[in-house]
Amino acid sequence: MAHAQETVVLQGHIIDSLILAKVLDTIHMMGGTYDVREMKVGASRKDPSHTTIVVRAPSAKLLDEILAAIQPHGAMAERESDCTLEPAPADGILPELFYATTHLPTQVRLDGQWVDVEGIEMDLAIVVNPTCAKVNAVPMHAVKQGDRVVVGRDGVRVVPLERPKERDVFGFMEAQVSSERPHGHILTDIARRMRTLRDESGRGKVLLSGGPAIVHAGGRAALAWLIDQGFIQILFAGNALAAHDMEADLFGTSLGYGLSAGRAVPHGHEHHLRTINRIRAIGSIEKAVKSGVIKEGIMASCVRRNVTVVLTGSIRDDGPLPGVITDSMAAQAAMRAALPGVGLALLVASTLLSIATGNLLPATVPTVCVDVNPSVPTKLADRGSFQAVGLVMDAASFLRELARELGWKG
Amino acid sequence: MAHAQETVVLQGHIIDSLILAKVLDTIHMMGGTYDVREMKVGASRKDPSHTTIVVRAPSAKLLDEILAAIQPHGAMAERESDCTLEPAPADGILPELFYATTHLPTQVRLDGQWVDVEGIEMDLAIVVNPTCAKVNAVPMHAVKQGDRVVVGRDGVRVVPLERPKERDVFGFMEAQVSSERPHGHILTDIARRMRTLRDESGRGKVLLSGGPAIVHAGGRAALAWLIDQGFIQILFAGNALAAHDMEADLFGTSLGYGLSAGRAVPHGHEHHLRTINRIRAIGSIEKAVKSGVIKEGIMASCVRRNVTVVLTGSIRDDGPLPGVITDSMAAQAAMRAALPGVGLALLVASTLLSIATGNLLPATVPTVCVDVNPSVPTKLADRGSFQAVGLVMDAASFLRELARELGWKG
Amino acid sequence: MAHAQETVVLQGHIIDSLILAKVLDTIHMMGGTYDVREMKVGASRKDPSHTTIVVRAPSAKLLDEILAAIQPHGAMAERESDCTLEPAPADGILPELFYATTHLPTQVRLDGQWVDVEGIEMDLAIVVNPTCAKVNAVPMHAVKQGDRVVVGRDGVRVVPLERPKERDVFGFMEAQVSSERPHGHILTDIARRMRTLRDESGRGKVLLSGGPAIVHAGGRAALAWLIDQGFIQILFAGNALAAHDMEADLFGTSLGYGLSAGRAVPHGHEHHLRTINRIRAIGSIEKAVKSGVIKEGIMASCVRRNVTVVLTGSIRDDGPLPGVITDSMAAQAAMRAALPGVGLALLVASTLLSIATGNLLPATVPTVCVDVNPSVPTKLADRGSFQAVGLVMDAASFLRELARELGWKG
Amino acid sequence: MAHAQETVVLQGHIIDSLILAKVLDTIHMMGGTYDVREMKVGASRKDPSHTTIVVRAPSAKLLDEILAAIQPHGAMAERESDCTLEPAPADGILPELFYATTHLPTQVRLDGQWVDVEGIEMDLAIVVNPTCAKVNAVPMHAVKQGDRVVVGRDGVRVVPLERPKERDVFGFMEAQVSSERPHGHILTDIARRMRTLRDESGRGKVLLSGGPAIVHAGGRAALAWLIDQGFIQILFAGNALAAHDMEADLFGTSLGYGLSAGRAVPHGHEHHLRTINRIRAIGSIEKAVKSGVIKEGIMASCVRRNVTVVLTGSIRDDGPLPGVITDSMAAQAAMRAALPGVGLALLVASTLLSIATGNLLPATVPTVCVDVNPSVPTKLADRGSFQAVGLVMDAASFLRELARELGWKG
Repeated sequence: MAHAQETVVLQGHIIDSLILAKVLDTIHMMGGTYDVREMKVGASRKDPSHTTIVVRAPSAKLLDEILAAIQPHGAMAERESDCTLEPAPADGILPELFYATTHLPTQVRLDGQWVDVEGIEMDLAIVVNPTCAKVNAVPMHAVKQGDRVVVGRDGVRVVPLERPKERDVFGFMEAQVSSERPHGHILTDIARRMRTLRDESGRGKVLLSGGPAIVHAGGRAALAWLIDQGFIQILFAGNALAAHDMEADLFGTSLGYGLSAGRAVPHGHEHHLRTINRIRAIGSIEKAVKSGVIKEGIMASCVRRNVTVVLTGSIRDDGPLPGVITDSMAAQAAMRAALPGVGLALLVASTLLSIATGNLLPATVPTVCVDVNPSVPTKLADRGSFQAVGLVMDAASFLRELARELGWKG
Repeated sequence: MAHAQETVVLQGHIIDSLILAKVLDTIHMMGGTYDVREMKVGASRKDPSHTTIVVRAPSAKLLDEILAAIQPHGAMAERESDCTLEPAPADGILPELFYATTHLPTQVRLDGQWVDVEGIEMDLAIVVNPTCAKVNAVPMHAVKQGDRVVVGRDGVRVVPLERPKERDVFGFMEAQVSSERPHGHILTDIARRMRTLRDESGRGKVLLSGGPAIVHAGGRAALAWLIDQGFIQILFAGNALAAHDMEADLFGTSLGYGLSAGRAVPHGHEHHLRTINRIRAIGSIEKAVKSGVIKEGIMASCVRRNVTVVLTGSIRDDGPLPGVITDSMAAQAAMRAALPGVGLALLVASTLLSIATGNLLPATVPTVCVDVNPSVPTKLADRGSFQAVGLVMDAASFLRELARELGWKG
Repeated sequence: MAHAQETVVLQGHIIDSLILAKVLDTIHMMGGTYDVREMKVGASRKDPSHTTIVVRAPSAKLLDEILAAIQPHGAMAERESDCTLEPAPADGILPELFYATTHLPTQVRLDGQWVDVEGIEMDLAIVVNPTCAKVNAVPMHAVKQGDRVVVGRDGVRVVPLERPKERDVFGFMEAQVSSERPHGHILTDIARRMRTLRDESGRGKVLLSGGPAIVHAGGRAALAWLIDQGFIQILFAGNALAAHDMEADLFGTSLGYGLSAGRAVPHGHEHHLRTINRIRAIGSIEKAVKSGVIKEGIMASCVRRNVTVVLTGSIRDDGPLPGVITDSMAAQAAMRAALPGVGLALLVASTLLSIATGNLLPATVPTVCVDVNPSVPTKLADRGSFQAVGLVMDAASFLRELARELGWKG
Repeated sequence: MAHAQETVVLQGHIIDSLILAKVLDTIHMMGGTYDVREMKVGASRKDPSHTTIVVRAPSAKLLDEILAAIQPHGAMAERESDCTLEPAPADGILPELFYATTHLPTQVRLDGQWVDVEGIEMDLAIVVNPTCAKVNAVPMHAVKQGDRVVVGRDGVRVVPLERPKERDVFGFMEAQVSSERPHGHILTDIARRMRTLRDESGRGKVLLSGGPAIVHAGGRAALAWLIDQGFIQILFAGNALAAHDMEADLFGTSLGYGLSAGRAVPHGHEHHLRTINRIRAIGSIEKAVKSGVIKEGIMASCVRRNVTVVLTGSIRDDGPLPGVITDSMAAQAAMRAALPGVGLALLVASTLLSIATGNLLPATVPTVCVDVNPSVPTKLADRGSFQAVGLVMDAASFLRELARELGWKG
C-alpha cells in the first residue's frame, strides 16, 4: 500500500481545549494513521502546548481530505507558505475553491506576515483588499467581481480557543444542557458578567435575541426591567415579539391571553392585529412610544434606553410592524452590523433567531442559549466552544430569575 | 342491510362537558348511525340536559361494540336493569367479562336501587359485598375467590362530570399544555385553591408527587417552605428525590452538583451513595431528622409537619433508603390508601409518578401536571376531565413561582 | 345588577363539531350567563342542528366582548343586518375596527344577500370590491387606500365546519398528537388520499412543506420518489433543504454528514457552501438540473415534474441559492398564490414553515403536521379543525413509510 | 499561600479518550493548578500514552477533593500502595468511607498485586473475599456484615477505556444525539454488529430493553422478527410491553388502538385488562404461548427462542402479568444476573428501563439509546464512554428500519 504523508504542527491550548484529541480522532476515523513526533505539553494551564504529527493515508486524495478536515482545528502544514488568492468571477460568486471560515480566530499569511482576519464568523469567504492592508471575512452574496479571495488551505491559520480566565460556567468543558441540572449558579454567573459589563463600560455589550414566548409566558416585565437598568444594549427579535409586547401595553393581552386578569379571551388574535395596524398608522414604534401611545414594556424601554433593535421579518408575520426588515439578507446584514463589541449573548426561546445569531457570533463571545426544548441549546452547544452554555428553561422563568439575581423585585 | 338498533339515554351536563359530541363522534367513527329523538338542553349552565338517541349498526355485534364504547360516557340503555354479578374464579383472577371502570363517578343498580361505587379509579373491577350494602372498585390482584364481581354493562351507570363552579383554570374546556401560554394566572389559580384548602380545613388535602429534578434544578427550598407552611399534606416520591434532598443537607450537593457554590464536583455520585448509606445506618428518615442529622429540606419538613409520605421503589434505585416500598403493588396500595380526601393534586417532573398517580385519581380531583417535556402533561390532559391542567415548565421554576404566590421570600 | 342581553342563533353541525360546547364554555368563562331557548339537534349526522341562545352579561361592554368572542364560532345575532364598510385610510392601513377573519368559511351580507368571502385564511381583513360583486380576504399590507373594508361584526357569518364524509383519520374529533399511538393507519389514510388525489385529477393538489431534516435524516430518496410518481404538486421549502439536497447529489454529503458511506466528514459545511456557490454561478436550480449538473434528488425531481416550488429565505441562510425569495412578504405572497386547489397539506419537520403554511390554509384543507418535537404538531392541531392531524415522527421515517405505503421499494 | 501538592500518573489512551483533557479541566475548575512533568504520547493510535502531573492546591483538603475527583479518570498517586479494607458494620450497611465504583474497568491492589474487580458497574462498593482470591463489585443492600469493603482511594486503579478497534459509530468521540443527523449509517453499523454477534457465537449476546411504545407505535412485528431470527438473546421490559403485545395477539388492539384496522376503539383499556386477566388465569406467559392461546408477537417469539426475559414491575401496572417481578431490588438483581456476556445493548423507548439498564452496564458494552425525546439519549450519552450512541427516533421506525437492514420484508 503506497502511502502519502505530511507533517503537521499543532500549538496553543490543544490539550484542555480538546484540539489534539479531535485531530487524532479525525485522522483515525477518516482512515488515516499518525505518528506523534514531538510533544511539548504546557506545564501549567497558562503555557501553550506544541506537537508535531506525521499524518499518513493510503492515497494522496484521502491525505488531502484529512488535512482539509483537521485544518479548522489549527493543524497546519509544517512548512509555511503565503495564502493563495483568486479573483471572484462575478458579483456574489466565489472562486470554486474558496476557503470557508470557521468561527475561530483566523489569520492568513501575506508576504510572509500573518495578518488577522476581521469580522470572523462561520461559513464566510476571506477577502484581501488591494493593498493587503486589510483582510475581511465576507458573506458570499456580498463579494464583488474581482475581489481577491483566499482559496485552498495554504497560508491560513486557525487559532485554537484559549480557555477563559474566569472560573465560571463559561469555562466548563462540557455544555450544560439539561433540565435536571441546577440553574441557580448558571444564572449567578450570567448575572455577574452582566453587572461587570454594565459597570465597566467598554468591556462589551450584552445582546439578547428572543422569541415571542418571552411575552406569552410572562417574562415581559422582567426583560423591560433589565433594559431599563442598562443591562442590555442590543435586541434581536421578530415582528411577533414586538407586536405581543405592545399588544400587552394596549390591550393587556398577548395573542388574546390576558396577562394580568389571566383569562384567555377567545378570538384574541384581533388584539394582535389591531396593535400592528395602529402602529402602522402611527408610522413607527419610536413615534408610538415618544407620543405616549405605547407606555410600558420591552419596546418602550428599548426606545427610552436607545437600545439597538433589529427586527427581522419572517413568512409567518402579520402586518408587519414598521421597522421590521422583511428582506432576510438585509436583516442578516443588520444583525452582523450590530455585533462588534458584544461581550455576552443571550439567545432566548427562538430556534430561528438563536441559530442565526449563533452562526454570526465568533467563538470568543460567551453565549447562553435558553429554550424549554432541549434540542435548541444542544445545537448551539455543539458549536464546539467553551463559552456556549445551554439552559433548558422556559423563557419567562429564565428572565424572571435572572432579573431577580440583578435586583428586580417583581 | 339488516339493522340492529337500541335506544340510549344521556343526561347531565352533556353539552358543555362535550359528552354528547363524543358519543355521536364515537357512533359515527365506529360505523354506526343515529337519530336524536329527544333533546332537552339545560337552559342555563346549572340545569342538566337530557337526550334520547337511537343507535343503529349493520350488525348486532357492531351495535354491541358501539354501546360498549359509549357507555363510559354515560350513555345508558333506555330500559334499566340490575347489574349482573359473577364470582371471581380464583384469588387475583376476575370473571372473563368483568366490567372495567373509568375514573368517573359510577353507580351500579342492585335490587332496583342505584348505589355509588366507592374508591372509583380507572381500570378496576367492581365488587359487591355479600349484603349488597357496599360496592367497591377493586384492583385485579386484590380480588378474592368468590367475590361478587360486576360483569357486562347492564346496570352500570357512569355520571358525566359537572363543570366546576369556580371560574378558574380548572374549569376550562381545553387543556393548557403549552410553553407559550402565560403561566401567571394558572399559578395564581393553583395558589388560591391551596390557600382555601389549607384555611378551610376539611375541604381537602393537597398531594404533591414529584421527581428528583425538583432538587437538581433548585426547587428544594421552595417545596420545603410549602410543606412548612402547611400547604401540602401528602408527598409521593421515589428513592432519588429523598436521597438528593438529604444529600443537599449533608453535603450541599445534589448528584454531585453543588447547589449553593454551584460547581459541579466530579464523581459526585459518591455523596448520593454516602447519604443513603448513612440513613440506612441510622435506620429511618424519621430518626435521621429527629436526631438532628438531617436538619433542613423536603424530608425534614415532611417529618416535622407529619406529612404522609409514600416513597416508591424503582429498578434504578441505589440503596434504597429505609422506608422505600420496593414492591410495586405494595407501593401502589400505599398510594391508593393515601388518596381519599385529596382536593388538589400537583404532579411534578416525574413521568412515572405522574402517570401512576393520575391513574389512581378520580376524575373529580383537580390535577396539575408540570413537566418541561410537553408529552407528560399532554398525556395527563388527555384523561378527558376539565380539572386536568398541564404546564410546560421546569420543576424548580414552577415551585419557586408557586411559593412566591403564597408568600415565600426566597 | 343591570343586565344586558342579546339573542344569538347557531346552526350547522354544532354538536359534533363542538361548536355549541365552545360557545357555552366561552359565555360562562367570560362571566356571562345564558338560556338555551330553542334546540333542534340534527337527527342523523347529515342533518344540521339549530339553536337559539339568550346571552346575558352584567354590563353592555362585557356583553359586547362575549358576542365578539363567540361570533367566530358562528354565533350570530338573531336579527340580521348588512355588513358595515369603511374605507382604508391609507395604503397598508386598515380602519381601526376592521373585522379580523378566522380560517373558517365566511360570508358577508351585502344588500340583503350573503356573499362568500374568497381566499379565506386566518387574520386577514375583508375587502368588498366597488361593485359588490366580489369579496376577498386581504392581508393588512396589501390593502390600498380607499378599499372598502368590513368593520365590526354585523353582517358577517362564519360557517361551522362540517365533519368530512370519509371515516378516516381526518374525521376524528381528537387530534392524534402522540408518539405512543400507532402511526400505521394514519399513514395508510394519508396514502389513500394521495392516491385518490393523483388518480382523480381535479380533486386537488398535494402540498408538502418541509425542512432540511428531511435530507439530513435520510428521507431524500423517498421524497424524490413521491415527486417522481406524481404524488406531490407543490413544495414549500427554504434555502437549506434545497442546498442540502443538491449537496447530496454533488458531494454525497449533507452538511458534511456522508449519506451513503455514512461517516461525518469534519468541516463539512464546505460542501454546503460550495454547492450554493456553484448553483449561483450556473444561475438557477432549473438550469443546474437541465444542464445535468444536478442529476437526482428532490430539486431535480421537482424540475422534471414541473412541481410548483416556493423557496423562502431566512436570516440563517448561506448564499442564498438563486430562486430563494428573500423578502418575507413576497415569499408569503408566493405561498398564498400557490395554495388554491390544495387538497392535502403535509407539513414536515420545519416549525417555521409548518406554522406559516398552517396560518395560510383554510380550515377545510386536510392537514398533517409531522415533527419529532411534539410541540409543533400540538400547535397545529390546536387550530380547531377536524382535518388537522399531528404525528410525532422523525421526518425521514415518515417519508419512507409513506412512500412504502404507495409502492416505493427503497 | 501554603501549597499542598501530589504527583499523579496517567497512562493508557489518555489523549484520544479525552482523559488527559478532563483531568486538567477538573484540576483547574476546582481551583487547583498543575505542572505536566513528563509527557509521552503514544506515537500511533495503538500505543498508550503516559504522563506525570504535579497537582497543587491552596489547602490539603482541596487537594484531597481534587485527587478524589480525578481518580475515576485513572489518575493515580505516583507511589502505589495496597487498598484499604474495612468490615461492613451490618447487613446492607457499608463502612462510612467505602469506595464507590465507576463503570470503567477497575483493579485493586492486594499484597502488591493488581487484581481485577468483577461485575463492575456504576455506584457499587468493592468487596474482597476472605482469601483475597476474588474481588467483586457489590450493591449496597447486598453487602453482609463483616464483608471486607474497600475504603478510600489508595490501591484502586481505574483503567481508561481504549477506543474500539472497529471504525464504526461506536468509536466516535462525540455522541450522535440529534434528530437531524442521518440515521442510515448508524442503523447499518448496529445491524453489522448484530449479524456478527449472531453468526460468531460466543462473541456476545444482544440485549434489548424496551417500553410499550414499541407496540403502540407499530414496531411489534419487526421486533418479533428480530427475535425469531436469533438477533436478540435478552429482553428487559415491563408489564405494559408484554400486556400490549399479547393484547395485540388476542384482540388486534394495543391500549384500544386497533393495530391493523387502525381505528381507535374507545374504552380500549378493557382489552388490556382482559388480556392480563386471561394470562393470570392461565398461570404464566409461557403456558399461554405453549398452549396456543398466544400465537404471535414479541412474547411468543421470546418463549419459542428461549430468550431470557426479565419483566420488571412498576407502580403504574395493571394486574400485573404472572412473571412480572414486582420487587424492584429483586428485578434489579434479575437484570444484573442476565448481563454477563452482553456484547450490545439496545435501549428503546423507555426512560426508566434505559437509565436503569445503562447504570448496570459496564462502559465497555456498546450501547444504543433510542427515544423520540432527545433528553433520554442525551442522558445516556453523557455517561462518558465512546460506545454510547443516542438516536432520536420513534421506537417503531427504529425497529422497522433495523429489521429491514437485517433482511425483514415487512
